[in-house]
Amino acid sequence: MKKKAVVATILDLGRQPASHQEMGHAFAPTNIALCKYWGKRDTELNLPATPSLSLSLGQKGASCTLRRIDQAYDTYFLNGQPLELLTPFSQRLKNYLDLFRPADSFSFQVTIQTNIPVAAGLASSACGFASLALALNDFFAWELDQRHLSILARLGSGSACRSITPGFVEWHEGVLADGMDSYGESLKEAWPELCIGLVILTEKEKPLSSRAAMERTVATSHLYSSWPLKVKTDLALLKQAIKEQDFKLLGETAESNALTMHALMLSAWPPISYALPETVLAMQRVWELRQDGLAIYFTQDAGPNLKLLFLAKDAEQVRAYFPGVEVLQPQAT
Amino acid sequence: MKKKAVVATILDLGRQPASHQEMGHAFAPTNIALCKYWGKRDTELNLPATPSLSLSLGQKGASCTLRRIDQAYDTYFLNGQPLELLTPFSQRLKNYLDLFRPADSFSFQVTIQTNIPVAAGLASSACGFASLALALNDFFAWELDQRHLSILARLGSGSACRSITPGFVEWHEGVLADGMDSYGESLKEAWPELCIGLVILTEKEKPLSSRAAMERTVATSHLYSSWPLKVKTDLALLKQAIKEQDFKLLGETAESNALTMHALMLSAWPPISYALPETVLAMQRVWELRQDGLAIYFTQDAGPNLKLLFLAKDAEQVRAYFPGVEVLQPQAT
Repeated sequence: MKKKAVVATILDLGRQPASHQEMGHAFAPTNIALCKYWGKRDTELNLPATPSLSLSLGQKGASCTLRRIDQAYDTYFLNGQPLELLTPFSQRLKNYLDLFRPADSFSFQVTIQTNIPVAAGLASSACGFASLALALNDFFAWELDQRHLSILARLGSGSACRSITPGFVEWHEGVLADGMDSYGESLKEAWPELCIGLVILTEKEKPLSSRAAMERTVATSHLYSSWPLKVKTDLALLKQAIKEQDFKLLGETAESNALTMHALMLSAWPPISYALPETVLAMQRVWELRQDGLAIYFTQDAGPNLKLLFLAKDAEQVRAYFPGVEVLQPQAT
Repeated sequence: MKKKAVVATILDLGRQPASHQEMGHAFAPTNIALCKYWGKRDTELNLPATPSLSLSLGQKGASCTLRRIDQAYDTYFLNGQPLELLTPFSQRLKNYLDLFRPADSFSFQVTIQTNIPVAAGLASSACGFASLALALNDFFAWELDQRHLSILARLGSGSACRSITPGFVEWHEGVLADGMDSYGESLKEAWPELCIGLVILTEKEKPLSSRAAMERTVATSHLYSSWPLKVKTDLALLKQAIKEQDFKLLGETAESNALTMHALMLSAWPPISYALPETVLAMQRVWELRQDGLAIYFTQDAGPNLKLLFLAKDAEQVRAYFPGVEVLQPQAT
């Protein structure tokens, strides 16, 4: 099992305490990709086919608390609700935790609390697994650096590797078979005026997981072969935009990248569309506002909700046009 | 001007009457592409980047009547309304007619009557220019064969070359610079049970012409380079489906081809989406019905309306699920 080998390599690098603590706790921000992660080169290690680039959302994300408990089975709570142990998500958590403890050793009580809707395209599994990796680092007192924490988080969920640090994060796709060069790294630039507006059209769970959608796209879309070049182009443009604080370039590139990811899904078979009628209306509204001169763009993940991109000076206008929008300014000073 | 040269070549092949008649008249069916035409290799001659395949819609289409009139300017009527001579469409008509008469010779009264909504993605310009080419053939008594009529129709509007004949029509993309090998040809197979259901969600004219949308896609979409291979694959599958009367294969291939064309548009910049909220709902309805076991698929052109594909045995069910659908059975015997 490749994951076990990666964990062994990384834990050799950390501090090796004689035992663990009774409790571990951590928070991880969720992240919104401006250049999307869509397609894997290794499904076990969650190694991506391309690089990607995200912005972490400050205080929006997941808190994870780990406790050692004296019972035969783990207990998981998500947003106050106990999780059945036989659900796919519980199995994913258990398989992940088993990477870090000897077989039949002890059990965990895991409590994850998110302040974003679960499974509505807001990267809840990204911040969930990132907070879990950070909580494990706290629990076992490994004192790992960000790079290795990012790799551990990736073993739980690919995009979780971008949720270890705040700000802009580039996920290097890497070339190594074990993925030791595939991790999230913070860009040094910040952009305090940059705002994200969360337009929550539904909090219902999405009908198809992004994991399944990604696999189906890669397997069936004729257009997928053009995606790596699109990512390469967009990544360079986004880094230039961030460096030069060129908002038009950032917005155009992020929106085009997101729409291209959704285009790939539409061309998969069976076709995948996360759009609700409300999604279409919200997109058209953005396009109309832009034609009227407002510098507003959007990005969309594997769900129907939109994330608006704009600058702080336009926040009041955006609030007026999108009642109920939640405005975040992740890098406000 | 390349068009003039093509016309000269073709008219040399036809009968050369001493003069023309006082009137010409013809009907041409509209056609629905099962494998779409999206992208040109020559914008003046409307030569396509790929082949395509369509089904002509029997009695749905355009009738054109041409009359010689004694005045300095042409007069055009579309569905009973006179057209202003300075509109882009009138200019297209005039430029087209000028290919066939000496400069400053005589004027036409052109009356085109369609029984489908104009500019709502129902290929009204295809059947319009096809009916005009056929009416010219009648007016001048050229007695051209279908191949050369198809080429003349293409000079007016690309997909018009598929509206000269009924049934399934393959538009050969050709390799020659003058396009003399790029024309619509009928397949010998018919499929009497095959039905098309027109789901008209709006009769409003589309905000962006398919001509402009096509050009923008080719110029800006990173995904476009994958389109020719998609077409090649789908064309082979559609011909196999028609030969074997394999409806599942026909439906899956046509729907996937249409969605891939829309995917290309979504990945263009600025993004192009013809979807209305109602389009999203209608698509989801088709997908749900299919999951419930009904053999129903859709195709969509450069407009928000859907065309359902199903077999005659399921027509009553389709009518029940899509109130207002107009059911056509173009090859019914």
